[in-house]
Amino acid sequence: MNFNDYVNEYKSKINSVIKSIFDEKLNSVNDPFLKTYFSEMNDYFLAGGKRIRPLLCIATFNAFTNKNDKNIIIPSVGTEFLHNASLIHDDIIDRDDFRRGKPAFHFRFRNYHEKYDLKKMEATEFGNSIGIIGGDTAFFLGLEAYFSSVFDNDLNLNAIKFYEQAFIEVANGVLIELDMVNRKNISMTDYIEMISLKTGALIEKSILIGANYAKVSEKHKELLSVYGINLGIIFQIIDDILGTFGDEKITGKPTDGDIREAKKTCLLIDALNKLEENDKNHLEQLIENPNMTNDEVQEVKNLFIKADVINSCKNLASSYFQEALDAINKLKTVINIPEAEFFENLLNFVLNRNF
Amino acid sequence: MNFNDYVNEYKSKINSVIKSIFDEKLNSVNDPFLKTYFSEMNDYFLAGGKRIRPLLCIATFNAFTNKNDKNIIIPSVGTEFLHNASLIHDDIIDRDDFRRGKPAFHFRFRNYHEKYDLKKMEATEFGNSIGIIGGDTAFFLGLEAYFSSVFDNDLNLNAIKFYEQAFIEVANGVLIELDMVNRKNISMTDYIEMISLKTGALIEKSILIGANYAKVSEKHKELLSVYGINLGIIFQIIDDILGTFGDEKITGKPTDGDIREAKKTCLLIDALNKLEENDKNHLEQLIENPNMTNDEVQEVKNLFIKADVINSCKNLASSYFQEALDAINKLKTVINIPEAEFFENLLNFVLNRNF
Repeated sequence: MNFNDYVNEYKSKINSVIKSIFDEKLNSVNDPFLKTYFSEMNDYFLAGGKRIRPLLCIATFNAFTNKNDKNIIIPSVGTEFLHNASLIHDDIIDRDDFRRGKPAFHFRFRNYHEKYDLKKMEATEFGNSIGIIGGDTAFFLGLEAYFSSVFDNDLNLNAIKFYEQAFIEVANGVLIELDMVNRKNISMTDYIEMISLKTGALIEKSILIGANYAKVSEKHKELLSVYGINLGIIFQIIDDILGTFGDEKITGKPTDGDIREAKKTCLLIDALNKLEENDKNHLEQLIENPNMTNDEVQEVKNLFIKADVINSCKNLASSYFQEALDAINKLKTVINIPEAEFFENLLNFVLNRNF
Repeated sequence: MNFNDYVNEYKSKINSVIKSIFDEKLNSVNDPFLKTYFSEMNDYFLAGGKRIRPLLCIATFNAFTNKNDKNIIIPSVGTEFLHNASLIHDDIIDRDDFRRGKPAFHFRFRNYHEKYDLKKMEATEFGNSIGIIGGDTAFFLGLEAYFSSVFDNDLNLNAIKFYEQAFIEVANGVLIELDMVNRKNISMTDYIEMISLKTGALIEKSILIGANYAKVSEKHKELLSVYGINLGIIFQIIDDILGTFGDEKITGKPTDGDIREAKKTCLLIDALNKLEENDKNHLEQLIENPNMTNDEVQEVKNLFIKADVINSCKNLASSYFQEALDAINKLKTVINIPEAEFFENLLNFVLNRNF
């Protein structure tokens, strides 16, 4: 089965489980504001997203079991809650009012504030406050995926341990990135370490949760970890490239954000490593400016092109691609063929995507 | 044993478990910023706090078991992490830069921002961002209390369910309160419903987690719930009274905050219920003003006194006190004497405290 077959087979089932968790919350509250709150969160979750993390959890489980046990679908959604919870908080941190072309969670409540007669709080403050609690709620609701699972409690508790580890690692990655924005001289090794936490850890743990329920051996879990972390690293490198050189019409994201925020992307680090002294100093000056003009953003892009960063970063991604592929090849003697195909297919999709 | 004996017996042990969770995190990271982050969070947790939630968990366990099993201390700290995580986020929401006389968690990182050469982010934005992730981290670290517990995994998983329910209820209470600030005509019933979630739920669940590990019957758990929720309600009513009429030197909190923010305290609701038309309209006008002068704050206090709100609210608290006491009296045939004393003593302490 290729990646699209998996999406067709499971995506609507995954969305049904997500919806059932919100429906249960909606039915448990009477307060009108709480009803709006859970209903908006349900909309936010179901507004888009490829569900890659639940799909990886399900595929890993299916790879090691002979029957396609539909019981894995319920606990597979845990990490999707964690992912969306992080997005809710990221949007507040990054001051992004839209996500997937729809209003960000906090922005929905900034708008909701209009409805009140009294205006003791400012709309922005109100929206951010509801957004902070909204992310928190989503982190906790993810746990319900494991409470509703019909597997043994020992396995459910192990899954929760992976869930917790995933967040701690993701948070460590986000914190290192926030620290890096304010520091100079970041190496490509620092960058890879940061993205393997920020992006790799949750993909890895989604896989390990599937492996946990299929009772996979430690040896095979190690190979799955290598695949998962590398898949995350490739995803983030390509994300960085598309973030600056992608087609806005296809990605739906403006291509000046990372440059204006001086994000320590692989593009910036590679350019600083390769440019000659004069160009390097000029690039640093441009990046340090807190209020860049459009022309200055374009100058940064020109320096990136001069340093041939796209090719270097694609080569970097290819090295992690090869490592991930080696791990899957080693697993081929023990995993089912359709899922081996899924894993390889997803790897190619993530490396070659243009959105 | 009275409340102080319990504090003397267990507080340092509780703090040791909290510290050991942070020590483990500190030892697991190499990045200097992450080391600072976990070390600041450790300081924040250990800067103060009465540890009422872990103490209640331990006392409940001891009340129903014949040996004082020290194994309960580790899982007792879970709800203390949840409590502190909420405080970290509350301080951002309420824009409070200090907590227990020390810098709030986000404020520590607003100050840390000074150290950077580059200043791509504003200090306030940086502090709030680290604070949002800081609260998230603390919510997740609380789970480690149950992972390290030596009790059966079925009991540990049940404890995590209570942990999750506690947060969902606390969040519902905080959300209802944020909604109420912007609405008129709040009844005392609405208020009691809100504080039983915002403050009662976490106290109740701390007790139920202790009861879970002691394998207490459902019938007795119901009585413990009544005690816990009522204890929380009393705590919050007294908190509201002290928040406006307490001695700032003893409480450490300014007495104008709730009035300026137009918080729907029991004082305000009681005054609006009892004042005559003219005074009531005047109070509403004063409260709706987003920028009150000191004189106007004093006018509000005078109207509160005219309505005799302190006595009414103390009477309100007394009715919940009686209900909680009845629950403990019903439990006296099955619980150990020192813990029955602890429960009664804590109830009196919470009702009669002046800080």
